[in-house]
Amino acid sequence: MTKKTLAELLKQQNPVEMLRNSRIGMYVYPVVAPEFTNWRSEQAAWRNSAVLFDQSHHMDEVVVEGPDAAKFLEGLAINSFANFGTNRAKHFVPVSPSGHVIGDHIMFRETENKFISVGRAPVSNWLLYNASLGKHDVKLTHSPRSPSRPDGKAVNRIHYRFQIQGPDAPKIFEKMNGGPIPDIKFFHVDWVNIGGRKVQALRHGMAGAPGLEIWGPYAEKDEVRAAILKAAEDAGVDLHQVGSRAYSTNTLESGWIPSPLPGIYTDPELEGYREWLSNEHYEASGSIAGSYVSDNIADYYTNPYELGYGIYVKFDHDFVGREALEKMKGNVKRRKVTFEWNAEDVMKVISSSFQRDELPYKWIDFPQPNYGSSSFDMVMHGDKMVGLSMFNGYSYNERCVLSLGMVDESVKEGDVLTMIWGEPNGGSGKTSAEPHRQTEIRVRVSAVPYAREARENYAESWRTKKAG
Amino acid sequence: MTKKTLAELLKQQNPVEMLRNSRIGMYVYPVVAPEFTNWRSEQAAWRNSAVLFDQSHHMDEVVVEGPDAAKFLEGLAINSFANFGTNRAKHFVPVSPSGHVIGDHIMFRETENKFISVGRAPVSNWLLYNASLGKHDVKLTHSPRSPSRPDGKAVNRIHYRFQIQGPDAPKIFEKMNGGPIPDIKFFHVDWVNIGGRKVQALRHGMAGAPGLEIWGPYAEKDEVRAAILKAAEDAGVDLHQVGSRAYSTNTLESGWIPSPLPGIYTDPELEGYREWLSNEHYEASGSIAGSYVSDNIADYYTNPYELGYGIYVKFDHDFVGREALEKMKGNVKRRKVTFEWNAEDVMKVISSSFQRDELPYKWIDFPQPNYGSSSFDMVMHGDKMVGLSMFNGYSYNERCVLSLGMVDESVKEGDVLTMIWGEPNGGSGKTSAEPHRQTEIRVRVSAVPYAREARENYAESWRTKKAG
Repeated sequence: MTKKTLAELLKQQNPVEMLRNSRIGMYVYPVVAPEFTNWRSEQAAWRNSAVLFDQSHHMDEVVVEGPDAAKFLEGLAINSFANFGTNRAKHFVPVSPSGHVIGDHIMFRETENKFISVGRAPVSNWLLYNASLGKHDVKLTHSPRSPSRPDGKAVNRIHYRFQIQGPDAPKIFEKMNGGPIPDIKFFHVDWVNIGGRKVQALRHGMAGAPGLEIWGPYAEKDEVRAAILKAAEDAGVDLHQVGSRAYSTNTLESGWIPSPLPGIYTDPELEGYREWLSNEHYEASGSIAGSYVSDNIADYYTNPYELGYGIYVKFDHDFVGREALEKMKGNVKRRKVTFEWNAEDVMKVISSSFQRDELPYKWIDFPQPNYGSSSFDMVMHGDKMVGLSMFNGYSYNERCVLSLGMVDESVKEGDVLTMIWGEPNGGSGKTSAEPHRQTEIRVRVSAVPYAREARENYAESWRTKKAG
Repeated sequence: MTKKTLAELLKQQNPVEMLRNSRIGMYVYPVVAPEFTNWRSEQAAWRNSAVLFDQSHHMDEVVVEGPDAAKFLEGLAINSFANFGTNRAKHFVPVSPSGHVIGDHIMFRETENKFISVGRAPVSNWLLYNASLGKHDVKLTHSPRSPSRPDGKAVNRIHYRFQIQGPDAPKIFEKMNGGPIPDIKFFHVDWVNIGGRKVQALRHGMAGAPGLEIWGPYAEKDEVRAAILKAAEDAGVDLHQVGSRAYSTNTLESGWIPSPLPGIYTDPELEGYREWLSNEHYEASGSIAGSYVSDNIADYYTNPYELGYGIYVKFDHDFVGREALEKMKGNVKRRKVTFEWNAEDVMKVISSSFQRDELPYKWIDFPQPNYGSSSFDMVMHGDKMVGLSMFNGYSYNERCVLSLGMVDESVKEGDVLTMIWGEPNGGSGKTSAEPHRQTEIRVRVSAVPYAREARENYAESWRTKKAG
């Protein structure tokens, strides 16, 4: 394919049509082995003992340096930078001029003038584009996520990145640190010992249990992992390394939606951005999966209030999208929920793949049924669409399929709604899905986060605070 | 773990106990991406259009060279070498002195004094050990299979190895060859053009449809694959690359059992071999999975007649195990069959993973439910064990779970028997399986190969001929 800008592509076709028929294949968690033990035991371990997540490969990393670094980033953030000291991290959320989420990253402030930003491509691209406008004295270094199918070729990153989680994780920390670790506050950074090294550690807790995210030069990865595994063994902890099949399902229990569609296709002010983006960028090559089909790409956008990021929005600084959010505030009708899929209906879907006379329903792959980089399945109350299901996964801990999504204000917790599972007309042109029939799956509206442990033990953050 | 010989290990523990509790994890198809499109469509493609299998990584390769090469190999083969000309391949089967299968390889005769042997580790190890005895003027070069979890490190092989299969494969061959390809007989080798190169091609047909296996220097892999994909595109063929999740299930439709347990643990004559083998070899670190538990490892052995290799056995030469096979011939009571799993019972197993109050049954992973390097599930007629199920997989083409295995002579095609699914006492110590309950799955005894296409169109070989 000749290189084209996103703006050119959008003159030729509707973006929904383009993304629904992407040929790029599954959006995977790359490089990491599919399973270390087995995905059921790996899921159980983050609830019952401890897990080691290898997050070295599935996220972009952007280093933002220079005298204007903080100013540059603040101008793109709904978040306040007033209390953003060094050795802290923020859940950084940029929005479009019309106030729609572009994506989200974890942003580390390493020094006064140096930030490290980690997450999916849309935020990286947005940072790179804005830096390219030359209005700030900043230097950006971009390390894109690892290839989806390295096929035996060497993969290199700037940093390794591990997370250690689970109820028994503290025993590992103490053993590897050679004594109690510093009392790090949630989303703050300190130094801990691992093997012979001092490494940076962020107090985190993705799967609902307390944990640390540690990172360092990629060349030290094997040595650091070996030290962690040894510490777990010495501490008598049943630590499971988590493979690519189980990894993405941990968010179902904790309630973060990793996959909002970047809201960048329609704002007239972003035409320059769409000219900067090419057919090779995520925004043009990614995929939309699911039963919800609208001609208007803006119908797939989300705003920070809907995703539960309202508590981040601070009007103490100027930023792209501020005006729009000021108008939105208090008028947002949708909220984030967990959908619990009806087991009988899930079984109905699976059993259709055992019948030869009709096209099966869309296969529910275990433990990760997603088949696009962003998912949108319609959730109905009778004939009326009252919600969207946006990220799916089977939880062995909860013994059910869950999804994260949004519902209208008319919907109450406990309501049983109907999700339309699968794409219309036999499925789209995506290579990630087989031809299939649509069907209905009953879903029960539940709290977010769903997991009891996550709900009760999580540090104060978007996961527990109500959106403002 | 300190290095120990297999002989030493066997003094400490029963080999069944050792292999049933192996901590090595899944026996995977390494390096190749899990999915290129999606595993359902990839399975469908080998039936309906064409597939590209990347076989560069999951098999050992042993090059056997020297003036005694043929004599050396013939002395370890049930196969006759009388008609083994250059540019042919054989399905090479060595047995133990007691006549039990050690494994099987595909053996290519490249020149008069040079053979290339490709397959699982047990045959490689057996060749290496026998060469080490110094009785033959041969030189062996061993390239073990690629690592199961390369974790972003570069993987190198001596050769790339591709297979192109499916009803539309001939259109690709003609396009890439720039004209009709030579009329190669089954399991014969000739040269074809791919891109600018001449490459060796074996006429093969693993998924039941005619195909070619091609190989060459690993450095040329990407170039050759690109040429194949281009030829398919130019020929208008919907070629699917097959990922690691679908790959191993192709054998369910064609009827080859890839995973016999090497019968090397008990023959007194093999004590030297067991002293040569270490704890790191497949024979000590591999795993036995399934409901069949016997104290006697010999109960897991198979002979060539049972596996359908009787037609290969030729007493025109002397070979290890000849005497035993001469006695066995005509007295073998078991035969290879396909088991078709009852869909309702499969659904019962799956639905147990949606109940919170009891331990689920052993998860049936799709499309590949195996959880050991060798599987042995009991197949019962009432209280009597009448068969063993040995290799499992879901076939989207047949819309059912199938397994390959053996039954006693009392069993007839069409009989409905009961397979015990899962391991006793909550499961063994294998990391590849979660704790689980045992249950029953009804299985219908069917022909081997199961697939109609494979049954009808396969070249004359062990797959269609009756065992002698």
